[in-house]
Amino acid sequence: MIVVMKRGASAKQLAEVIAKIEADGYAAHLADGDDNTLVGIVGEGRGAFQQAEYEALPGVARVARVTVPYQLASRQMHPRDSIIPLNGKPMGGDNVLVIAGPCSVESRENLLEIAHAIKEAGATALRGGAYKPRTSPYSFQGHGEQALKWLAEAREQTGLPIVTEIMDANLVPLVCDYADVLQVGARNMQNFTLLTAVGQSQHPVLLKRGMSSTIEDLLMAAEYVLAQGNAQVMVCERGIRTFEKHTRNTFDLNAIAVLKALTHLPVIADPSHALGLREYVPQVSLGAVAAGADGLIVEVHSAPDEAWSDGRQSLTFEQFAAMMASVKQVAQAIGRDA
Amino acid sequence: MIVVMKRGASAKQLAEVIAKIEADGYAAHLADGDDNTLVGIVGEGRGAFQQAEYEALPGVARVARVTVPYQLASRQMHPRDSIIPLNGKPMGGDNVLVIAGPCSVESRENLLEIAHAIKEAGATALRGGAYKPRTSPYSFQGHGEQALKWLAEAREQTGLPIVTEIMDANLVPLVCDYADVLQVGARNMQNFTLLTAVGQSQHPVLLKRGMSSTIEDLLMAAEYVLAQGNAQVMVCERGIRTFEKHTRNTFDLNAIAVLKALTHLPVIADPSHALGLREYVPQVSLGAVAAGADGLIVEVHSAPDEAWSDGRQSLTFEQFAAMMASVKQVAQAIGRDA
Amino acid sequence: MIVVMKRGASAKQLAEVIAKIEADGYAAHLADGDDNTLVGIVGEGRGAFQQAEYEALPGVARVARVTVPYQLASRQMHPRDSIIPLNGKPMGGDNVLVIAGPCSVESRENLLEIAHAIKEAGATALRGGAYKPRTSPYSFQGHGEQALKWLAEAREQTGLPIVTEIMDANLVPLVCDYADVLQVGARNMQNFTLLTAVGQSQHPVLLKRGMSSTIEDLLMAAEYVLAQGNAQVMVCERGIRTFEKHTRNTFDLNAIAVLKALTHLPVIADPSHALGLREYVPQVSLGAVAAGADGLIVEVHSAPDEAWSDGRQSLTFEQFAAMMASVKQVAQAIGRDA
Amino acid sequence: MIVVMKRGASAKQLAEVIAKIEADGYAAHLADGDDNTLVGIVGEGRGAFQQAEYEALPGVARVARVTVPYQLASRQMHPRDSIIPLNGKPMGGDNVLVIAGPCSVESRENLLEIAHAIKEAGATALRGGAYKPRTSPYSFQGHGEQALKWLAEAREQTGLPIVTEIMDANLVPLVCDYADVLQVGARNMQNFTLLTAVGQSQHPVLLKRGMSSTIEDLLMAAEYVLAQGNAQVMVCERGIRTFEKHTRNTFDLNAIAVLKALTHLPVIADPSHALGLREYVPQVSLGAVAAGADGLIVEVHSAPDEAWSDGRQSLTFEQFAAMMASVKQVAQAIGRDA
Repeated sequence: MIVVMKRGASAKQLAEVIAKIEADGYAAHLADGDDNTLVGIVGEGRGAFQQAEYEALPGVARVARVTVPYQLASRQMHPRDSIIPLNGKPMGGDNVLVIAGPCSVESRENLLEIAHAIKEAGATALRGGAYKPRTSPYSFQGHGEQALKWLAEAREQTGLPIVTEIMDANLVPLVCDYADVLQVGARNMQNFTLLTAVGQSQHPVLLKRGMSSTIEDLLMAAEYVLAQGNAQVMVCERGIRTFEKHTRNTFDLNAIAVLKALTHLPVIADPSHALGLREYVPQVSLGAVAAGADGLIVEVHSAPDEAWSDGRQSLTFEQFAAMMASVKQVAQAIGRDA
Repeated sequence: MIVVMKRGASAKQLAEVIAKIEADGYAAHLADGDDNTLVGIVGEGRGAFQQAEYEALPGVARVARVTVPYQLASRQMHPRDSIIPLNGKPMGGDNVLVIAGPCSVESRENLLEIAHAIKEAGATALRGGAYKPRTSPYSFQGHGEQALKWLAEAREQTGLPIVTEIMDANLVPLVCDYADVLQVGARNMQNFTLLTAVGQSQHPVLLKRGMSSTIEDLLMAAEYVLAQGNAQVMVCERGIRTFEKHTRNTFDLNAIAVLKALTHLPVIADPSHALGLREYVPQVSLGAVAAGADGLIVEVHSAPDEAWSDGRQSLTFEQFAAMMASVKQVAQAIGRDA
Repeated sequence: MIVVMKRGASAKQLAEVIAKIEADGYAAHLADGDDNTLVGIVGEGRGAFQQAEYEALPGVARVARVTVPYQLASRQMHPRDSIIPLNGKPMGGDNVLVIAGPCSVESRENLLEIAHAIKEAGATALRGGAYKPRTSPYSFQGHGEQALKWLAEAREQTGLPIVTEIMDANLVPLVCDYADVLQVGARNMQNFTLLTAVGQSQHPVLLKRGMSSTIEDLLMAAEYVLAQGNAQVMVCERGIRTFEKHTRNTFDLNAIAVLKALTHLPVIADPSHALGLREYVPQVSLGAVAAGADGLIVEVHSAPDEAWSDGRQSLTFEQFAAMMASVKQVAQAIGRDA
Repeated sequence: MIVVMKRGASAKQLAEVIAKIEADGYAAHLADGDDNTLVGIVGEGRGAFQQAEYEALPGVARVARVTVPYQLASRQMHPRDSIIPLNGKPMGGDNVLVIAGPCSVESRENLLEIAHAIKEAGATALRGGAYKPRTSPYSFQGHGEQALKWLAEAREQTGLPIVTEIMDANLVPLVCDYADVLQVGARNMQNFTLLTAVGQSQHPVLLKRGMSSTIEDLLMAAEYVLAQGNAQVMVCERGIRTFEKHTRNTFDLNAIAVLKALTHLPVIADPSHALGLREYVPQVSLGAVAAGADGLIVEVHSAPDEAWSDGRQSLTFEQFAAMMASVKQVAQAIGRDA
């Protein structure tokens, strides 16, 4: 439920509404509407919800029902775009931000080379895997903390904030020591233990859509993080599993448009995983931006064909630089910047 | 197989190659490469293919294998973009063309009103269903020939060429009398009887991807039309069936990029059917254009909520006009026009 | 809508109900319920439906709404199992019937050899393709009428009725001259022109589920045939398209159980196309029978590895005979026979 | 790679092979073939694999390549069925075992009532959720350790072993204190942290297929557990996500047959989650058993319509008892018992 305050409601009236919400066993969530302040009523309270009692409070215009199962993630409860700062730029604002880097961190030298190259091309943040979710237990599982240290060094040299995946709730404190954004991967989108842990961390979270998760599932997963009081969640379309075999996954362009309408959270596109084939990454990136994505996350490597993982979908430096120029053009065509 | 002629090969040498192809029981298909003339060898010939015999012919540079199961539809056999003229504009060329109109033709007045409105907004062609594939035998099945006559009248008044769906091979001559482009719908994409019939008509064909057809299936269906000697085929991504329930189908953005690489045929996007929800049609349209689509086909209605079919996904005149302006901007951003 | 007649309603009262239905512009469809006669009201009548007028007629117990979009295909309008005789045995009755044979009819001798072998193993009918829907226009498209003649000869020798696919509405009269059952394949499940034509033929129809068709879509397609007055429709689960790559399609076992509940039409399973791999066909066949399928249709070949099409999924004679013995066992375990 | 020992190879020769495997940095995995002992070579060794060196060892017949990416889970490396004892009965042997119980443990009394009822009907083990993976953070998340205590009490009273889901690697020791089998749910099938933790526990594991996981993905997930030295893994088909909307998921019957061929691990079917609709659970259960499933896991509740979760798919006691009788019949029809 949402309590919509009257336009001129006083701070005291607002405080009384919040006090009642908490007294009833719920949590209150404040948001600005176009003209009104909204107070979301979240969670399971004591007894049945007494709508009339809230409507009778001074300063209350009306009480509205949230018609979707996610609450904090919904536009209904939070009409304005949420902005998450990334290296001084606002993810979710006028700019289209680009996160780039290797699939996995392979070596210090290689990572630094890539970091400098993507920075020069205009990237906003550096991605790189320290802990890798691999289908096979016998595959390279990532360099772990050593990789985190190299990522931190790359940030020091380039100023680019670090985005890296986390798979183990126990490692949240360690990864937070090094990373700027915690990525939750597609395979863990409904790992509720992990979602709760990253929620408690209060670190920005980049949450990828599971490969067979609906848009609603994705927003419910975001809700797990938000429900821990961590408002800094970005959601990411990275392709879903379908019958199509030519590409690794299917990039659901509808999802970009629908997510922008249903949620206030920044929406990011990952064309690299959606395609699995680097030659199409620039076109799909442009499509995602034109459809309204707030950001991109793409895999870039100094020598893709020698990459330890995901080489087939990683851009070369040249491809990435060319793509960045086009992204800028398309962003401007829809009134944004990149 | 493809015979690649030497750069300076003579017409006589070319004629000899073609003669041998036909003598061996195949059909020959001519195309320009960057510097060379290519001669495709299509169909099932007599006996095993004798590559060395072709390589020994004067003027032949080499013989290459087509590595995909579709032949005439492939870029390998036909490197340059095919262009299909539509109302004096080239579908498949520098322009992004937009086909618009109602789902089904409801009445003469309504159709004319819509035709004038989309023309004013910049559409290149008028779509409208005379024969409707309906899931239920009890639903409105279209006004048939009467609707074709109204479509012809709309063309007369506006100059817009007519795109209309055909479901019955027996009706090809009748529909060709009125329509400029024959649309083969998603449900009939593998109706090989119909594909052969529209192929024989030599009328331009707009072929929609089946809702569970792979990209390769789509190109094989196009091959059925091309194999009849009809080179004017446009292929159309209109959304595929997945587990996602929020939208009617899932718009496969990858397919736009992949199709542009695999085939020389113009690639069109149908965001209306991919979404089923009009409010997202503009964004998905822009995404498709940015990713390289040569055209769009969108449903527009004077009063969508009263439309006899597909009203939920039809744009109003205002929405369509606004979308056209944005399409122009995005097209220009990638070096095209709209 | 369904008019439920009183238990002791007279023939005259029934005739009056039917007369009113037809006078109102609908078609009437008679069916036996457990104790009552049901009269289905089908199609689009003149003006709004006047329920009270029907309820006021003598002999009428009540008027019920059909809550599914298919009417004639539904159990609501037709509670008892429909039975379609096949070679003197009832498809849809106590027996589990098995249709078997080659994918395509290759030669007279080969077909006769297969026909005798499957008959000996206990098959009820012979399948074989005369007209083949092939993904490629360059693949073998079937021997056409010659194959139909061979099929007729095989029937003469073995007594087995013939099931063969039809793709072209124009060929319905020709195919009806030879075949006992017209098969509509998965790719044509929503070819409404063809559905109408086979409906008008009054020949038994085996309708396969489209590879991305929902259970409801399948029943709506059956409704197209039934709406032409052809009550002899069998529906067939043959696997749907999913992300799983190990098998050609995914056999939807749920669909067998659900179809048996939603429709009175016989339900058949095609494990050959669902799997694409012969080694698993016996197990999936047993599963389908145990879940309630009324029949099976399986591909059998004298030398599967040399078959012109679908060899990988065709059983050898030995495999088929062994499977038939197991099918009998499982059928008996659930109180049926095979 | 697999070292196939000669038929009469000595223990000393076997020990030498194992010693070399370990000296080369691999792990050795012993299994009986029909006549030979097989020694699997697992993991990443030092340097390139020297096949000739192994072939030269005394007692070695030959060295074979495992042609699938999973090793320990494959039939190639382990030809005979693995048997996992459950309450004195062998899961994976001649019997078809049935695990039953409520979705979530709701109260002590309710659990005990259900446990006694399913025992009386012939179930082999009791399932019940103490920790529930819920799409919404606001839904009931399970009674946790209290529920584990009630489960243990139910085991004490009925003798039925306990199967319960685990979502958090940190809780493995706690859950192992109470449960007999650790269930890893569909959403966590690729939670590699959790897979590793349950692998290290050496407790039997019931691993459910992810809703968009391929058969190969499932076996790779099993490999994660097996690679920790825990050989007691059961894999479970529980329905996959497709476009079909009538049922909650699609039961992939092919997967039962394919899994039995590809792996030696016991294969279980979960029709409750595959369907989401209790009325079809008995038929799909029979189908799974007929196709070769070693066991079933079904949801049963004393009052399904009042269940706190999954009530729509839970069987009543009467339905469950009737189903068990049919399962017995079908199992016997294929030469097994239930």
